[in-house]
This record gives sequence, structure tokens and C-alpha cells, in this order.
Amino acid sequence: MTELAPALEGAHILGSTRSRAGVSAFTACDPRTGAALAPAFHEATDVEVARAMELAASAHPAFEAQGRELRAQLLEAIAAGLEALGAALVERASAETGLPTARIEAERGRTTGQLRLFARTVREGAYLGARIDHGDPARAPLPKPDLRSMARALGPVVVFGASNFPLAFSVAGGDTAAALAAGCPVVVKGHPNHPGTSELVGGVIAGAVRALGLPEGTFSLVQGRTHEVGLALVLHPAARAVAFTGSLRGGRALFDAAQAREVPIPVFAEMGSVNPVFLLPGRVAADPAALGAQIAGSVTMGVGQFCTNPGVLVLVRDAASGALLDALAAALAAAPEAPLLHAGIRKAFDAGLERLAGVTGVEVRARAAAAGPCGARGALLTIPAARFLAEHAAREEVFGPSTLAVLCEDAAELLAVARGLAGQLTATLHAGAGDESLAASLAPLLAERAGRVLFGGFPTGVEVTEAMVHGGPYPATTDSRTTSVGPTAIARFVRPVAYQNFPQPLLPDELRDDGPAGLWRRVDGAWQLTPGA
Amino acid sequence: MTELAPALEGAHILGSTRSRAGVSAFTACDPRTGAALAPAFHEATDVEVARAMELAASAHPAFEAQGRELRAQLLEAIAAGLEALGAALVERASAETGLPTARIEAERGRTTGQLRLFARTVREGAYLGARIDHGDPARAPLPKPDLRSMARALGPVVVFGASNFPLAFSVAGGDTAAALAAGCPVVVKGHPNHPGTSELVGGVIAGAVRALGLPEGTFSLVQGRTHEVGLALVLHPAARAVAFTGSLRGGRALFDAAQAREVPIPVFAEMGSVNPVFLLPGRVAADPAALGAQIAGSVTMGVGQFCTNPGVLVLVRDAASGALLDALAAALAAAPEAPLLHAGIRKAFDAGLERLAGVTGVEVRARAAAAGPCGARGALLTIPAARFLAEHAAREEVFGPSTLAVLCEDAAELLAVARGLAGQLTATLHAGAGDESLAASLAPLLAERAGRVLFGGFPTGVEVTEAMVHGGPYPATTDSRTTSVGPTAIARFVRPVAYQNFPQPLLPDELRDDGPAGLWRRVDGAWQLTPGA
Repeated sequence: MTELAPALEGAHILGSTRSRAGVSAFTACDPRTGAALAPAFHEATDVEVARAMELAASAHPAFEAQGRELRAQLLEAIAAGLEALGAALVERASAETGLPTARIEAERGRTTGQLRLFARTVREGAYLGARIDHGDPARAPLPKPDLRSMARALGPVVVFGASNFPLAFSVAGGDTAAALAAGCPVVVKGHPNHPGTSELVGGVIAGAVRALGLPEGTFSLVQGRTHEVGLALVLHPAARAVAFTGSLRGGRALFDAAQAREVPIPVFAEMGSVNPVFLLPGRVAADPAALGAQIAGSVTMGVGQFCTNPGVLVLVRDAASGALLDALAAALAAAPEAPLLHAGIRKAFDAGLERLAGVTGVEVRARAAAAGPCGARGALLTIPAARFLAEHAAREEVFGPSTLAVLCEDAAELLAVARGLAGQLTATLHAGAGDESLAASLAPLLAERAGRVLFGGFPTGVEVTEAMVHGGPYPATTDSRTTSVGPTAIARFVRPVAYQNFPQPLLPDELRDDGPAGLWRRVDGAWQLTPGA
Repeated sequence: MTELAPALEGAHILGSTRSRAGVSAFTACDPRTGAALAPAFHEATDVEVARAMELAASAHPAFEAQGRELRAQLLEAIAAGLEALGAALVERASAETGLPTARIEAERGRTTGQLRLFARTVREGAYLGARIDHGDPARAPLPKPDLRSMARALGPVVVFGASNFPLAFSVAGGDTAAALAAGCPVVVKGHPNHPGTSELVGGVIAGAVRALGLPEGTFSLVQGRTHEVGLALVLHPAARAVAFTGSLRGGRALFDAAQAREVPIPVFAEMGSVNPVFLLPGRVAADPAALGAQIAGSVTMGVGQFCTNPGVLVLVRDAASGALLDALAAALAAAPEAPLLHAGIRKAFDAGLERLAGVTGVEVRARAAAAGPCGARGALLTIPAARFLAEHAAREEVFGPSTLAVLCEDAAELLAVARGLAGQLTATLHAGAGDESLAASLAPLLAERAGRVLFGGFPTGVEVTEAMVHGGPYPATTDSRTTSVGPTAIARFVRPVAYQNFPQPLLPDELRDDGPAGLWRRVDGAWQLTPGA
């Protein structure tokens, strides 16, 4: 532990206070050993949930009104605070997830990078979509009004931490960064499998809020292991939006609850997908063994616990694809065992493979028993395309280091598999010599069904840039019109407000004639950068 | 009737064919006389609904793939076709709605203007949000991929025609224009009170689709008087989004049905609001009589049947506000009777005024019986602010030419009324000398609760420009993050798709290095206009 890391209290962070009123307690567990990790954490009570949401409500719109510069400083202070936690954060996150410290360090870099990217985004202000349409008092028969609009913060956002990214998609992850950047107070429901990591990170955010003099309710963290805590947050009248990364079942339950409220609120649930990789014959023939080994690397990366893990491969049955599968099976069999995030995922992984193996036509090509309490080893199964298209169970995600190879008789059947796909986060196309025509037919089918399409490479590894789309049609997400990665993720947490014939002093700075320097605005229908700076 | 206007068949338009298979029939009615208008229209059957949706599904993404220029031509052809219908359209729409022909002509101008604005918008292409983030193969430890993204069409959109704008918010109204501009096939459920207008307009669209050689399923129109037809459209698996303008009850029912689907789809329901107008003491004192007369004009405009009708006025009780209310009551009493759109609205208007009049503390200041079968006359009621805040029934919309004046004891109570407001399409602030401080406190409260805030003037009259926001927090709409008026309404019907490391020939034109001339794109984080043109 470094000197800067605070001792864990096992407490919720409710604005500027800590609370631990619940009776029901739980602990984290080291998936490498099965050992419980102190301290005990307490299920949030109704009173604690209500307090977090009421604080958030009282911080809106006061937090937004503090302006973009202070929000940028908040995001930067959080990034610096995470770094200042040093090894204490890395070791705790590693112990709670079983992920190697090198992976946690890389994830910390991604998390601080995201925070700083959102700081730049909020400073730049283009995301506001500030628009000015000048009026024309002389227009007949009626004067044309002066109209100006820009994005405003929605209000309190409930963020659910994800199990598989204890930093990048959790307490200070992309959802929190986007919501804070937008000017929305955030209440995080920490994932119950890494509560210590959540408390450490939450403490950094609360400290940064305090240090910058922002409203107390700008950030809270509540912990809990049951569905009730999350549901209570979503159903609280002060909640204005929800962000979630996790299972289809969990995301859909929150979505249903939020839509059934008296005042429905948007739920941005990223629920994963099978991320099909189409391996066209010309590409496969070029070097099947090497390609098989590369696929094994992507399948087992992070013990297969990425939302973008390639869970389905689609190939035309021929000698080269046979060689690819042989190489892939061998590489998966040779890959070492590694611990999954927790016992629940291990159980679900085993059950998912059982289910798949039971589907008519499925052959198990690689699958080995794991020894550790949460251990998993790479698996490869195959299925004829006709069976894949016929059996819904074959198309469901198995979360973990496995992949299902779908074997097509010809190019037409490969296109039929593409047409049969549900919504996906990603779809990947590998094409080589002679595949040009098939690739041209396939690419639009994939773009119609996925948020991101790749040519070559693998979907694992989600670059954080403006053009990234980490989203996709249902069931990949509950709202295909958004992304949960990259600066445009801010758009989930804002709504446009128009100001008609408003006097300059009553307008937000960004809509005044002399807007802040260096701001992109649409003025009378064209993008303009305000002068200065 | 001009030579160009076709005879009405009382038929649904299913792509390129007409159909009239249903047994249950209904007719339009002239609200000025109560007389039925030939011909009979038939409730769409399940088979007809399914046919319309299947045609739409088969037209996606083929329609989008025809490109932006052809979509722009389609929108322009529809506008020209509406004009070519001449007096036949105006007379039928006037007969079916009771709205004067001058109003219908103005609405036609607005409708064709919208269509042409969307044509310009789709040609310009900035709405695509095309983004290019160049890769860096030399980046360590991992190469940075080339990422490009842009908006793609969601797929078939179900549009519900509104009763109060037989042209501008109906078959070829803003929702249809936005969806077609986005590249989405459209199936319209015509409003049952103006089926003849719907058929005339639908025929124009179907003709334009045919003339341009676009996919047959690009447009269909089904008619029906029951909820079942609309529900069947929304529940059809091919539907990808829904646009609706109408009542809270109707919009919420469609929203609930769409969210409960196996694959939920977005519903953009604009459900109206009370559009409060805050009249601050300094402004009222300046000229109470004139202001009262102006308010009467806005309240009775279009027989009060605008979504933005000022249904609530908020004033501080003093001598000047008393004089304003006297003038308003007198002007409303003097305003001539006019027919509401149909008997159902007349019934709801009468019932709504009854309900309001029954709320404790409400005084009726102007209200006169109407003679015609659908007739209505202007009404003014008042209520003390404390009662308004206490009684939910006082805050509900009454659709028609009435307004409720909320009388506050002081500025603090006026701010409390603002804080107590639910989501609104609009909120208006009139301020004069001495009101500066109160206006500065009030403006952000209104912006927090409405899609559009006005300084002076009245909310009726929704300018169609980029900066317009016709939307707002629930219950004004089901999605405050969007607008249903203005070119940014396209955003409802698209989703972003990212292309990673794609070869140039497989990219959409707009994302290629040599993109089309004159296209706004974000390139490596800054807006750029592609050279040429």
C-alpha cells in the first residue's frame, strides 16, 4: 500500500459522508484462491439509496451551472487521483478480479486516458451542438424569431459498475466520465465482486468533488449484492438516466423497470454479443495455421471476458478452414488455465458450454477441465451453419474463453448466416485474394447488424476515439443510437434546449453572440469556430 | 377539384398496390356540419398491416443504398406533388378538420417547406456526423486502428398522423420527411378523422416513389379507427422506430407496447403540454390590456388545437394582472365560436373544463356554450398558486381554446410554481422593467423543464429551423433528447456505425478519403468541409 491509499471502510459514499447502516454484509473474494477479502461491505438500505439520489437531485442543475472548465478539472483531478493511489489500487483490483496486475495497470491507463479525453471534450464544447439561427424581424407575414439551442445536462445518472472492467467500466469508468462531462450528478452502484476497488475509486471522486468545491451530491457510491439496491436507484424519481454494462438478463430487467416508471427514463445497457468473425476462403487459405493461432489469442485475452470477445467464427468448410480449426484447437488446448472473475461466471461458463455441446450437430473440438475455484480453459466447438440458423441456443453468448465455429457449405450459406444474426456490438470480416465479391456482399449485411464492423484484426480492443461506436442493435444494447465508448458517449446524458428571442444576458455563454473562444457552433446552417484563444 | 386530383378510393396504399379488404368501415365527418364525407374507409386487416410492414422490411436497406441525392429528389417530388393537388387537397383537408382553407394553405406551405428543408439537409449530409480518426500503425504497444463512423438508417419507421395538423404532422409531415430523409422506409397510420386527406397525400408519396424507381416498400399508408391497427404496426417485428403526435394516453400506450417487445424499439411520442407563460409584474404593468388581448389571440389560434397552446398563465396578483385578466376574459368572450377537429375533441374539451372548474379554488372567468356539433369558444379560468401546486388535476392539459391563470401572492410563489412544473414543450417568460432579477432566477428553472424557452411572444408558431427544439421532458414527450421539428429531427431515425481498418472501396462514399464535395466531417477531432463543388 502506498501512503496515499486510504484504508477500506466497507462504507457507501453518500456525497461527503460515509455510511454503513445495512445489516446484510458481503465480502469480495479472490478468484485465484477462493479466499474472502476483508473488509465486509454492507447492502445499502432504502434510506442510503434515497439519500444518494436526493443528494444528486439537489446537485442538479447546480453542478452543470459551475461550467465546463470546472467539470474538465474534475475529470482531470479524478485521473490524477487514480494514479496517486498507486499500487494499492492495482493490487486490490487484481485480488478482487483475478486479472494480472499488468492488465489492471493497462486498464488504469485506459481509464485515466478516458477521463482526460472527456476533459478535453467538455472544454472544446463541440458536443454541445450549439446552434444559432438568426431571426429576421422583417420577414412577412410573420417575423422570424431568433433561435439558439444547445445540449443541457439531463440530471442525475445511475451508473452500474461492470464486473469485467473494474476500472474502465466501473466507478470512474466511461459512463461516469461521460455523465460528469455532460454536467450530470452520478450515483454509482458498485459491482459486488470488486467492492474494495469501487470504494478506493469512489473516494478519489468524492475527494475531487470536495476539493473543487462542487455540490456535494455530484457523486455518490452505493454498494450491494442484491438486485433490490440497483432497482431502487433506477426507480427513484430523481433518476434521469441509467448506464449499465453487463448481462442481457440484468440489462433487460433494469430497462423494463425504467420504462414502466410513471416518468420513463432512458437506459443505456450494453449487454454484449457473440461478435461474429467471418473468415472468407481466400484469407483462410493464405495462412490457416497462423490465423488460427491469432484467433486463439483473441478468444483467451482477458480470459475471454470482453464484451467484444469473438464468440462465433464463420467459415466455409474446406481443407484450409479445417487446418485453421486444427491450429485453433491446438492453441486453445495449449493455453494455460486462468481464473474467471468470480464463481458465478465460472458456473455460467460451464453451463453455457454444456448447453452448446448439447445442441444437435455441435462437436466439441477443444475443452479441458480447470482446476482453480474460478478457473477456465479455452474451448472450441463447431456447428454446421444450417443447425446454427435453426437453433436459437447456438446463437446465444457464452461469456468466457470459448468460440463456436459455424461451418458453411458455400458462400451463399455464409451470407445466410450473416442475415440470421441478431444485433451485435461488432462484426469482423477477414478477406483475401479472390474474396472481393463475397466481401462486398457481406460488408453491408454486417454494417446493418452491428455497431462496429472490422476489416481484419479482432474485435477485442476498443479504441477510445471520436469515431468509435461501442453499441449496436438489440440485444447488444438497449439503444442502438448511442455508444458507450468514446467522447460521443456524452450525447446519452444531454438533451437540447432551444432559446427563442432571448436577451443576451439570459443566454448560456455558449449561445451568446460573443461566445467563448474556440467553440464549434452551427451558425445559420454551417459549422463555425468562434474566434479567439 | 383540379384535374390532377385523383378520386378517393377509400383504400390503403400498400407499396404500389391499393387494398380495401376490411369489413369494418368508417367515414370522415365535417365538424362544421356534422355531415359524413364519402367515401367509406376500411379498417386495415392483419394481412394488410403485415403486408405494409413486410414491404417496408424488404425496402431496407435498399432504399438507403440508393443514396442521398435520390432521397432529396423524393422529398422534393413529394412537395411538388402536394402543390399539384391544388384546391382538391385544401378543400378536403378543410372539410375533414373544419380548419379554414387559408390555414390549410399555410399548413401546406409549411409542409412543403419542411420537405424541401429535409431535402437540403440530406444533400448537405452534415447530419451524418461523419467522423474519421486516422490510424497510427507505428503506435506502441499496439497500432492505432483507422476508425470512421457515420449515421445509418434504422430501418422501417411507423408514423402516426396527428389530428391537429392534417398536413404538417401527418402523412407527409415532419416525421415522415425526417424518416425518409434518414433513409428509412415509412409506414403511416393515417389519422381516422382525415382519411381522405391522408389518401390524397399518400398517393402523392407512392407516386413519387414509383416515378423515381425506389423500392416499392419505401412507403405505405394504412388506415383504421381502432387502436388495434396502430398496435399491430408497432408490434410487427420489422418496425424499428415509431413517431407519434397526439395525446398522453395514446402515446404512452404505444410506448409501453414498444418497450415490452422482445426487441424494444424507440418511440418518439410528442404528447403535448400546458406550455406555461410567466408574466412578470413589470411587463404586465406596462400595458395589461394589450397583453391580455395578445394572449387571447394565441389561446384561440387554430381553435386552441396546437401542442404549444398556452394552457397556463402565471402571474403575481396585483392591480395590473387584474386588468390583464379582465382584458383577456373580454377578448375570449368576444372571440367567435369555431369548430374543433372532431366530436371527440369537443367532448374532451368540455369534460376538461368541467374537471378544471371542479377543482377547489378555480374560478371561471370566461366560458360560453357553443352551438355547432363540434363548436368551442374561448375560456379563462383562474386558480390560486397554492391550489395549482396542490392539485394534480389543475396541471393537466385541456386541449382546446382555454387557459388557466395561476395567481401567485409574490415572486417566491411564482418561482415555486415553476419548480412544480412537469416536463413541457415550451415555457415562456415575459419580463419588463424591474423584472431583471426575477427573470434571471426564473429562466434556468424553465430551461430545466422545457424543450424550448421563449422570452416574450407566444409558444404557438413553431419555426422550422436547425436550432428549433420541439420536444421536452416527459410527459411532453417520451424522449427529451430529440426534437420532432426541424432538420435535427433526422437524428431519431439513425444510428452510428463504425468501420475499423476498412479498405476504401468497401466504405460508404461519405467516409472515403476523397469524400463527396462539400460534406462536413469531423476529421481527427475538428469539423472540416470536404473540398470541391
